[in-house]
Amino acid sequence: MPKISLKGQKMPSSPIRKLVPFAEKAKKKGVHVYHLNIGQPDIKTPSVALDAVKKNTIDVLAYSHSAGSETYRTKLADYYNRNNIPASADDIIVTTGGSEALLFTFNSIMDAGDELIIPEPFYANYNGFSVASGVKIVPVISKIENNFALPPIGEFEKLITSNTKAILICNPGNPTGYLYTKDELNKLAILVKKHDLFLIADEVYREFVYDGKEHHSIMELDGLKEHTIIIDSVSKRYSMCGARIGCIVTKNKNVIATALKFAQARLSPPTYAQIACEAALETKQSYFDDVIDEYVQRRNILVQELKKIEGIKVAQPSGAFYCIAELPVQNADDFAKWLLEDFEYNNETIMVAPAAGFYSTPNVGLNQIRIAYVLKKENLEKAVLILKIALQRYKDLN
Amino acid sequence: MPKISLKGQKMPSSPIRKLVPFAEKAKKKGVHVYHLNIGQPDIKTPSVALDAVKKNTIDVLAYSHSAGSETYRTKLADYYNRNNIPASADDIIVTTGGSEALLFTFNSIMDAGDELIIPEPFYANYNGFSVASGVKIVPVISKIENNFALPPIGEFEKLITSNTKAILICNPGNPTGYLYTKDELNKLAILVKKHDLFLIADEVYREFVYDGKEHHSIMELDGLKEHTIIIDSVSKRYSMCGARIGCIVTKNKNVIATALKFAQARLSPPTYAQIACEAALETKQSYFDDVIDEYVQRRNILVQELKKIEGIKVAQPSGAFYCIAELPVQNADDFAKWLLEDFEYNNETIMVAPAAGFYSTPNVGLNQIRIAYVLKKENLEKAVLILKIALQRYKDLN
Repeated sequence: MPKISLKGQKMPSSPIRKLVPFAEKAKKKGVHVYHLNIGQPDIKTPSVALDAVKKNTIDVLAYSHSAGSETYRTKLADYYNRNNIPASADDIIVTTGGSEALLFTFNSIMDAGDELIIPEPFYANYNGFSVASGVKIVPVISKIENNFALPPIGEFEKLITSNTKAILICNPGNPTGYLYTKDELNKLAILVKKHDLFLIADEVYREFVYDGKEHHSIMELDGLKEHTIIIDSVSKRYSMCGARIGCIVTKNKNVIATALKFAQARLSPPTYAQIACEAALETKQSYFDDVIDEYVQRRNILVQELKKIEGIKVAQPSGAFYCIAELPVQNADDFAKWLLEDFEYNNETIMVAPAAGFYSTPNVGLNQIRIAYVLKKENLEKAVLILKIALQRYKDLN
Repeated sequence: MPKISLKGQKMPSSPIRKLVPFAEKAKKKGVHVYHLNIGQPDIKTPSVALDAVKKNTIDVLAYSHSAGSETYRTKLADYYNRNNIPASADDIIVTTGGSEALLFTFNSIMDAGDELIIPEPFYANYNGFSVASGVKIVPVISKIENNFALPPIGEFEKLITSNTKAILICNPGNPTGYLYTKDELNKLAILVKKHDLFLIADEVYREFVYDGKEHHSIMELDGLKEHTIIIDSVSKRYSMCGARIGCIVTKNKNVIATALKFAQARLSPPTYAQIACEAALETKQSYFDDVIDEYVQRRNILVQELKKIEGIKVAQPSGAFYCIAELPVQNADDFAKWLLEDFEYNNETIMVAPAAGFYSTPNVGLNQIRIAYVLKKENLEKAVLILKIALQRYKDLN
């Protein structure tokens, strides 16, 4: 039998999705599962986007431009300019989700063996894309004690080698919920200029910023035009995860030209979804105000209820819709499986994402989980109650 | 300024798309361009597929399963069984176009430096995916003189090294239009079993087979369960290039499990497009009969008219909707650019794909072009007339 690749063997299972078969089994037994594992919001997609697709007049469902439909990119540039990000349509390559934006960026700026520094915990699929492109992730640990703020810049600097090509941040952070300050970004700016590195920011949660704080993009930073690359996606902004539309934004023309070659090889991003995305740009501010309001309430309930559970440590998120909690268990992976396989409370249980998969350093975050607060308040309350009861029962068992 | 990757520098420009800027300039000058360069059919998408999207009742546009929606995969398995391909829903991973199916397959079975044997000329983007995944393409030349039939099996065998992992064919062929016989496939079967290789077949043109001939899938072959991987796509079958839906089909469980990890890293294929694809499976046979009838007429006109032009050599296609023509010019790339930049006849010109980009061996096929017969008969006739006049004028100039 012919063998699969070493790369395939090394490819990590997604910590967000690897427990799905266990959840499916629980559901088959009639147990209701609250999904706290995945950032799939229950928020309604703006009707202006949904309606545009219903009213489409396509008769030949054709390829679009490899860089994405020109009208969409033009309107998207307006959106960025309104958000303090100076970009024109030519600075944008529309991708199939933020995922493809990451893959094109990795492939365009790094070769196998090159190094990419990322504060951990980080979005788990960065691991997958690094394996796929042969890039080595070099992690810098950020800490739950200070809500996962940027590690001291000296910690980054001492990891820089001749193979280092870029620093990648997620802002606001998935899975941490941390929002980087302008001051933190400025420190990174000085560092990447000094060592001539790229600075990549995954800013897909740009709109999800709480407590009157302000999001700053890396493309606001002075003198970094050739260094900065934004990874973006409509998935969370408009609750359109299934659209699979994201983009790369950069002023660096070499990066755009190179990413376009990767884009041409896969022909084009999906056409229907681009119709939805172009229309979604018309979404009224009131939609976002309501959504943010809802998330703030959810976060408040979640954090407040979690803090009441003995032995739990929780980071205060200022953005996105995730929070990392440290549990009084040895191994959160075993616990998460047990929740689906052997536990139920009133015929209900919860699915969480074990946080070890969000770290690149082995054996770190073993007792942490990521909770996505993408459920209605009453369900979140129930979910935390289930967690509390489960922790008690798990303790009694072990 | 930080540098782009070596991989990015090596990444080839798509021969199908690289002349697009020249075509855009021609259009700006008011010149009408007939697109013979790209396999974007003008055939209407089945209304059953278009209507399903218009009537969708989605209110949260959510991720689907990473392997694709279960109902779609189940119906797709029925389609394969009707086409002599024994497959169940679990043997299928739905991908974002045939492009992603190729990428996942390459990544799942090959590492950087591994070798993949492909008869050339081949679909140009195989080059792009090989650069992206670090795989080395080892070409075997097939010849226009015998319509690009399978090269003698000894030619394959002498290229096999300890790094060879797979043989890839496209059947029917893009850009050749050649349909492999059962006998040719059996010869490949013996070879891959003997050397324990994978056999990958890009069968996206399965339905486009002419002159009463029959398509044979590699999954029909005996004793090759663990060796065969089909790459598929709905783009051409239902004239849904913009859907960006394809799939991997294989009985090899290790390949499915590995490809699924790559699939999970990118979350899911596009949701709207899967609705269209599931509905498209209900397309009536009469739709295909009409489409095949149309393509046969187009092919007949194209080949017959091309043969009338002095100095042109043309291969007879039995499937797909491409044909390779050898022109009386030194460099088809220069000629194709000239057609867009400096030529017009009654304010019209044509865009063709220079065929050198479909070869991996340097300096082969330099005087060949690929013509996609995706235009209405009267436009095809005009396009060939334009080619004839252009060749005469080009000859006079040079």
